[in-house]
Amino acid sequence: MLTAAYLGNRTVAVRDASPTAPGPGEVRVRVAYVGLCGTDLHVAHGDMERRVRTPLVFGHEMSGVVDAVGDGVEGWRAGDLVTVMPLLWDGTCPACRAGNSHVCQNLTFIGIDSPGALQALWNVPGSTLVRMPADVEPRHAALVEPVAVAVHDVRRGGVSAGDAVVVLGGGPIGTLIACVAAHAGARVVVVEPDPSRRELVQDLGFRAVGPEEIGPEVERWTAGAGADVVFEVSGSAAAVAAATGLAKVRGTLVVVAIHPEPRPVDLQRVFWRELTLVGARVYERVDFERAVELVAAGVVPAERLITRVVPLTEVNGALDDLGAGRAMKILVDVQAGQPEEVRA
Amino acid sequence: MLTAAYLGNRTVAVRDASPTAPGPGEVRVRVAYVGLCGTDLHVAHGDMERRVRTPLVFGHEMSGVVDAVGDGVEGWRAGDLVTVMPLLWDGTCPACRAGNSHVCQNLTFIGIDSPGALQALWNVPGSTLVRMPADVEPRHAALVEPVAVAVHDVRRGGVSAGDAVVVLGGGPIGTLIACVAAHAGARVVVVEPDPSRRELVQDLGFRAVGPEEIGPEVERWTAGAGADVVFEVSGSAAAVAAATGLAKVRGTLVVVAIHPEPRPVDLQRVFWRELTLVGARVYERVDFERAVELVAAGVVPAERLITRVVPLTEVNGALDDLGAGRAMKILVDVQAGQPEEVRA
Repeated sequence: MLTAAYLGNRTVAVRDASPTAPGPGEVRVRVAYVGLCGTDLHVAHGDMERRVRTPLVFGHEMSGVVDAVGDGVEGWRAGDLVTVMPLLWDGTCPACRAGNSHVCQNLTFIGIDSPGALQALWNVPGSTLVRMPADVEPRHAALVEPVAVAVHDVRRGGVSAGDAVVVLGGGPIGTLIACVAAHAGARVVVVEPDPSRRELVQDLGFRAVGPEEIGPEVERWTAGAGADVVFEVSGSAAAVAAATGLAKVRGTLVVVAIHPEPRPVDLQRVFWRELTLVGARVYERVDFERAVELVAAGVVPAERLITRVVPLTEVNGALDDLGAGRAMKILVDVQAGQPEEVRA
Repeated sequence: MLTAAYLGNRTVAVRDASPTAPGPGEVRVRVAYVGLCGTDLHVAHGDMERRVRTPLVFGHEMSGVVDAVGDGVEGWRAGDLVTVMPLLWDGTCPACRAGNSHVCQNLTFIGIDSPGALQALWNVPGSTLVRMPADVEPRHAALVEPVAVAVHDVRRGGVSAGDAVVVLGGGPIGTLIACVAAHAGARVVVVEPDPSRRELVQDLGFRAVGPEEIGPEVERWTAGAGADVVFEVSGSAAAVAAATGLAKVRGTLVVVAIHPEPRPVDLQRVFWRELTLVGARVYERVDFERAVELVAAGVVPAERLITRVVPLTEVNGALDDLGAGRAMKILVDVQAGQPEEVRA
């Protein structure tokens, strides 16, 4: 079967591999679609060399169907439409014992720390499977993972109906946060410097403005109060500097983006307005299940977010386009072009 | 009567003034003791020139007795022992309307934005009075305001019994936070670079370590989990940089200190461990009333925290000692040395 693997030295290659039978506790999934995301790009660009062991078959936003069920796994049958929640925790660290296993101190993120979904037949622990309603488009099901991120972020932000919400960054996660927050009854403005991304966000029905406009915009919009919740999804130092100025007294800032180095934060403003900053990372099972509901119900404009679908053999071109900001979400059709013997 | 006033140009002077009768809604308080704090020092050092209107009679940590009651004020009689919660809010701004009047967007802080307690007979709005049990030492009652700050900080931090708490900064507020958190059942370590302050904190029964020791100390103490709550009370950039590394997964950092410029914050750690940072400013009425209880019950080691008591005429020397770190809490005895005609 064909796989896409990061080989180190900023090189991704399509390589042949032999499918294996699922071990005890595992399920073999026939992968349908895999979405490429910023983390995959970090892996491909060599930004995570200390963490990944090469060669690494990557990919963690996916849909597929159950192909074979290993010993000791109950509840799954061949043909079931599924996605995978790609987290494995040790269950014994202080974070797990306190009920926060999704941010286990020894978390294994499948697709980064262990083999991911860019392979025709993928063995995963049965516990990571999440059932999709059978009538969901497999292409849309591949968006459940990033939607779960957005659901988790919105939950961490404590967004309530009627809230004024600012999303700094109009990429896939920022846009999904806007969708999830709006569905929860919030009024949303997205801040995005790139005009074409801004246009897409506007086409989806949201207000979208440039970074230079948001200060006066929030002032006007909230009649001097400030935003209830601000999501920092851009990763930029400038957005962090602006974020504290946008939030109301006792408002909340959610740190969603990766910031590779410490950022100057206006702690005087945090103190003065009694702001709350919360970090939000990955998702809990409840977020994943909510994401399945939102995708199945069509709340998430999945089709609009998918820029295009490419076969596995074109993964490098897809990563290039993603890196250059020429795409919102690109899906890899993992079955297209697979050799005859692994086809269903 | 004698008053102590900031005249601008880094000058504090003892000046004569005539007492006035309390206006409608006001109460005249015969001030007993006034504690000097870091904010008073900022005023005296000219750091708040854009905010204060000179001459400013300052001082806001105080005790006294009711001297005269203005029209329309109910519930107070001459001789009642009181302290003052020195906040006035407009009641109409978005923060007030949302129930956060203590951080009103147009807050008047009495003693900074309007005349304070360093005067023999002080008129304050009746609504700001807080009753002290008659058997509390007036010297101790003057500590209620900083204790209310600590109560508010501990409440904002969500400290629970059994929590591992780190307090960065062993000055008066840090020490009071340690006292309040310990009384709530937390286990507390104070981090303080100054050996003599560290010694005082240790004498009060707390563990106190230097900044270089706290990392390994927390690691050992919490068996690799990290602290439940970290209070940043030092105002230093180095403490901010260290704070995120000390907190457990889903731990809380409380920003208590003033940080005059943006500080580098490890947002990657905030994200990775899903930390919460909260700003904590002043207090609500419930914090003040709780502080009265804690002072009255002797939970706060008031006598130990008072380095010395000076007459009003020595306010400049007291500010110098405070600025040089030669004192924990200095109280001004406002009645000592007042002219015959204003004495009770």
